[in-house]
Amino acid sequence: MILFSEIVVRPIGFVSTEAGPEDLRLGSGLVSRIVLREEFSDSLEGIDEYSHIYIIYWMHLIDEESRSRLKVHPRDREDLPLVGVLAARGHTRINPVGLTVVELVERKGNVLLVRGLDAVDGTPVIDVKPYDYYDVKENIRVPEWFEKIWRERIH
Amino acid sequence: MILFSEIVVRPIGFVSTEAGPEDLRLGSGLVSRIVLREEFSDSLEGIDEYSHIYIIYWMHLIDEESRSRLKVHPRDREDLPLVGVLAARGHTRINPVGLTVVELVERKGNVLLVRGLDAVDGTPVIDVKPYDYYDVKENIRVPEWFEKIWRERIH
Repeated sequence: MILFSEIVVRPIGFVSTEAGPEDLRLGSGLVSRIVLREEFSDSLEGIDEYSHIYIIYWMHLIDEESRSRLKVHPRDREDLPLVGVLAARGHTRINPVGLTVVELVERKGNVLLVRGLDAVDGTPVIDVKPYDYYDVKENIRVPEWFEKIWRERIH
Repeated sequence: MILFSEIVVRPIGFVSTEAGPEDLRLGSGLVSRIVLREEFSDSLEGIDEYSHIYIIYWMHLIDEESRSRLKVHPRDREDLPLVGVLAARGHTRINPVGLTVVELVERKGNVLLVRGLDAVDGTPVIDVKPYDYYDVKENIRVPEWFEKIWRERIH
């Protein structure tokens, strides 16, 4: 077994949005642009036949101190239990990889218009994947603290 | 805007499985182990309250030739249309990032037992995330070729 110590990843593109960090919440419904490097344009051929896609990105503003924490209160809310960083979806995590399912609004050449991405302007994008039936799980179980924030969310 | 040219990622752990590549298909139902570095054990606290999690990994066996291709026949089937590599979920892609929703069977310290991971033994894991209600999308649209392979799959 080969144990890799480091992986070097080159972004395939970047997030472009005029919205500030405060506006970019899950469920905000804001439209962002994913601008791929032009030479990768053909890699998107046919993606507009999907209604939803995953954006996998690198949260480049997260600092080393955040990355060294192993437990966190979800959403920085002290009324929610302290859980492992990998048991939550926040920005505080060992590798600041972001993953969001977004609605694909339109593809124009090397640019994707997507709705609902919670990534700031300039965020490096490392992969884009279609969301398909294998990704839809029914009757899932989540922690009670997640049920609580789900009930409280703004529709 | 800062444009990063390279991102250096250190794996948080590795996939361990006795199954060979041929057995590791989506929907196989095989159980794999995700072995995190021991110092990250606390980052998993509370993850077993979720029924499903995402494993994000680096498909280290994919070669440069595969990574330079921009279009592909899904599943290497010539009866399916040639589409962009980012419009399919195959191993052939610009950055060989793998993403699978798996069933979480058990957590034991720094080890996760998961069902349904299509990653070979020794695959570096770069992140683990819980699967929650934001990830469940209803009435999604997928291409006709995907509908075809979905109808053909073995349950």
